[in-house]
Amino acid sequence: MSRIFSFFLFVLALAAQPADFIWSARYVITMDGQRRVIPNGAVAIKGDRILAVGTKAEIDARFQAKQRLDRPDAILAPGLINTHTHAAMSLFRGIADDLKLQDWLEKFIFPAEAKNVTADFVRWGTRLGCLEMLLGGTTTFTDMYYFEDVVAEATKEAGMRGVLGETIIGFPVADNKTPADALAYTERYLKRFQNDPLITAAVAPHALYTNSDETLKAARALANKYNAPLVIHLSETKKENDDERAKRHTTPTKTLDDLGVWNGRSVAAHAVWVDEADMAILKSRGVGIAHCPSSNMKLASGVAPVTRMLALDLAVGLGPDGPAGSNNDFNMFEEMDLAAKLQKVTTMNPQALPASLALEMATIRGARALGMEKEIGSLETGKRADLITVRIDRAHAQPLYDAVSQMVYALKGSDVRDVMVNGKPVVRDARILTLNEPQILAKAAEYRAKVAASLK
Amino acid sequence: MSRIFSFFLFVLALAAQPADFIWSARYVITMDGQRRVIPNGAVAIKGDRILAVGTKAEIDARFQAKQRLDRPDAILAPGLINTHTHAAMSLFRGIADDLKLQDWLEKFIFPAEAKNVTADFVRWGTRLGCLEMLLGGTTTFTDMYYFEDVVAEATKEAGMRGVLGETIIGFPVADNKTPADALAYTERYLKRFQNDPLITAAVAPHALYTNSDETLKAARALANKYNAPLVIHLSETKKENDDERAKRHTTPTKTLDDLGVWNGRSVAAHAVWVDEADMAILKSRGVGIAHCPSSNMKLASGVAPVTRMLALDLAVGLGPDGPAGSNNDFNMFEEMDLAAKLQKVTTMNPQALPASLALEMATIRGARALGMEKEIGSLETGKRADLITVRIDRAHAQPLYDAVSQMVYALKGSDVRDVMVNGKPVVRDARILTLNEPQILAKAAEYRAKVAASLK
Repeated sequence: MSRIFSFFLFVLALAAQPADFIWSARYVITMDGQRRVIPNGAVAIKGDRILAVGTKAEIDARFQAKQRLDRPDAILAPGLINTHTHAAMSLFRGIADDLKLQDWLEKFIFPAEAKNVTADFVRWGTRLGCLEMLLGGTTTFTDMYYFEDVVAEATKEAGMRGVLGETIIGFPVADNKTPADALAYTERYLKRFQNDPLITAAVAPHALYTNSDETLKAARALANKYNAPLVIHLSETKKENDDERAKRHTTPTKTLDDLGVWNGRSVAAHAVWVDEADMAILKSRGVGIAHCPSSNMKLASGVAPVTRMLALDLAVGLGPDGPAGSNNDFNMFEEMDLAAKLQKVTTMNPQALPASLALEMATIRGARALGMEKEIGSLETGKRADLITVRIDRAHAQPLYDAVSQMVYALKGSDVRDVMVNGKPVVRDARILTLNEPQILAKAAEYRAKVAASLK
Repeated sequence: MSRIFSFFLFVLALAAQPADFIWSARYVITMDGQRRVIPNGAVAIKGDRILAVGTKAEIDARFQAKQRLDRPDAILAPGLINTHTHAAMSLFRGIADDLKLQDWLEKFIFPAEAKNVTADFVRWGTRLGCLEMLLGGTTTFTDMYYFEDVVAEATKEAGMRGVLGETIIGFPVADNKTPADALAYTERYLKRFQNDPLITAAVAPHALYTNSDETLKAARALANKYNAPLVIHLSETKKENDDERAKRHTTPTKTLDDLGVWNGRSVAAHAVWVDEADMAILKSRGVGIAHCPSSNMKLASGVAPVTRMLALDLAVGLGPDGPAGSNNDFNMFEEMDLAAKLQKVTTMNPQALPASLALEMATIRGARALGMEKEIGSLETGKRADLITVRIDRAHAQPLYDAVSQMVYALKGSDVRDVMVNGKPVVRDARILTLNEPQILAKAAEYRAKVAASLK
């Protein structure tokens, strides 16, 4: 087989197959099964897919590209995958820092949302979020918010990939006044974005404690009807667990399992307060986990047992959560760095979560958490062409002994130079190609004035 | 008094006093006694000092500047103060990640240093370190390394402020073969840099466990002879404390106190494993503390009781430590963010260390840790002109509700746009003015090859 394949490659080389793009770099971090890092590597792209990955010499011999981008001073890597966020909350960035989670949510966020969130707010907030995420090397994000069809429109317009969940919650919110309304809204939304190349429409019951059992079951049924993922907050705080223990003498994970909520594609955000039995359930149901180290630290929610989850080979990805107090940005480089450091210090083991695993969580393992590991998360032939280049020619990036270590511990979101999503360049030389940046920043300033006035 | 002062200002306004520079910005974060944040503020500078701080309108009325810099899309703040690092270790960046501290030190760092550290290595490593630090908004750094006179030369050449300690350690190292040699070397170095406007030469016994009691006493006496600070690693790991307990049934802090090591200007780095009695000693002796959250997390050293130290009003600053495994860069914005988040999650209190205190640690409280609070750490009339501008016109910086929160939780080292040290611009529009950046990066690559070969 491998000889036949080699012969096939040889024939292709003679033919100089057409490609739309060749991108090359000093190092290509593939995140493939062998975790190959290719010095002086390249990737060929055609349509929305990766044609081939190899050394620059090989790729140049085999393919003739319409356009090429050579970055001898950069790392080329899979686009980063954010598994939990609230993009439109960018417009509330830093509105209420250094508060207790319940105060933050109940005194600031819920009132601010009640007074300000409209379809227009969500459109501009998502644009701002996508702008920041793309400039920082995130190519896929997982969202839970309101007016999620508008989120999807803004995401498509940005040329970004999204797993976008319409929130279902047991009190009246900006877009829907009842869970029944929200379920109906969600079904229209799921239908509208079926088979979209960039958008995976999702169902997002907010959490166990904010929904009735009936709503949760209906949400699962709806997700399964459209083969959509269900995304939910899970055991973020000790209080959430304590309350469930008082109410039903068990854990949120177990209750959700009993309700059948895990019977299908699922992503659970936070999973801070999960025990061995919970992790066994999450493993057996194939639930993806979105670990959010910045948020869990900033809100003092606790430290998720990520080292243990990885030992169990759970599909754990990373998420910056929302920028309205639980974090203040969408920076996946910081989440990688923090995930590694937080596990090290809390387990008192500097080898607990090495750079290689942190990068895995931000790429291929994050893809697994979303049930998309066959499509994204690594640079391999046949996968979607979601890739980034990251500069290594600045003072903080030199010298470079190990490309993976550098990605996790030294490089920054601000080092991202080029971004391609689904075969289309969306950032070139740190400039966004798909969005009107000055207009978005002007709108952000406009919303700042409105929001600040609404809280007086 | 205040009327007389107002009249005085009025007269000054008529006279339009000459200044060398006026720098203005959207917000000026002063870190003065009242922690004033001035919207549309400005700073006037003459020689190496700040003449005045106020609104742009006031400053423009009172002063006529030779040069001005207006940044309506930036924050103007005091230069950041790094209270613990090893600048020349930049050349070992990421050489040995994800290892236990003793293995890291004994199997990688000490051998790598033995084979590679020369005066030339230190010169280029310090240049690289200063380049990265200045571009990231650090204007003062505290160093402990070898060939510290070369560190001082490179620091002056960069136009940076340094508290630079020559290492004294109980085994042969690159520059000195015995502690006696090191003490003699240090005295020559202290003499040479007396009264330097940028360099505060310091004495740096490595730690209690790497020096004899006699050497430690001699180091203190030498420091006091020249009114120099003594900088030392203190209780970084549990092992260090356990060993001292086994040896002398007490703590490193107490032993050093008994030896008289704290009798004079002192900066203790890490102070992770200090108890109430230790903190009482550090407080009564006025010892500055360099808290190093990245390093303590990455090496799994533990979590310093910073919330308690701040409650006791200890002079706690921040340090990124060295970039050879304990951290991988010199990024003070990350240290601020981490210091706040780490205390929150480990005390399970989201209010444990708010943004205002994190910024204080990186500025005026860091200055106190170094015994330099009358000279640097805030923007006030008469202080040295060490200041930075930080862009707030990028996606991750908008909207802005609170300038201090934004500095700590959203802005990055890469947002630093301009830097002035001691009245001299050293970074303009994110470009270094004082160092030859391409040459430094080329040398870093050269040393990378040498160091990698030496470890084979």
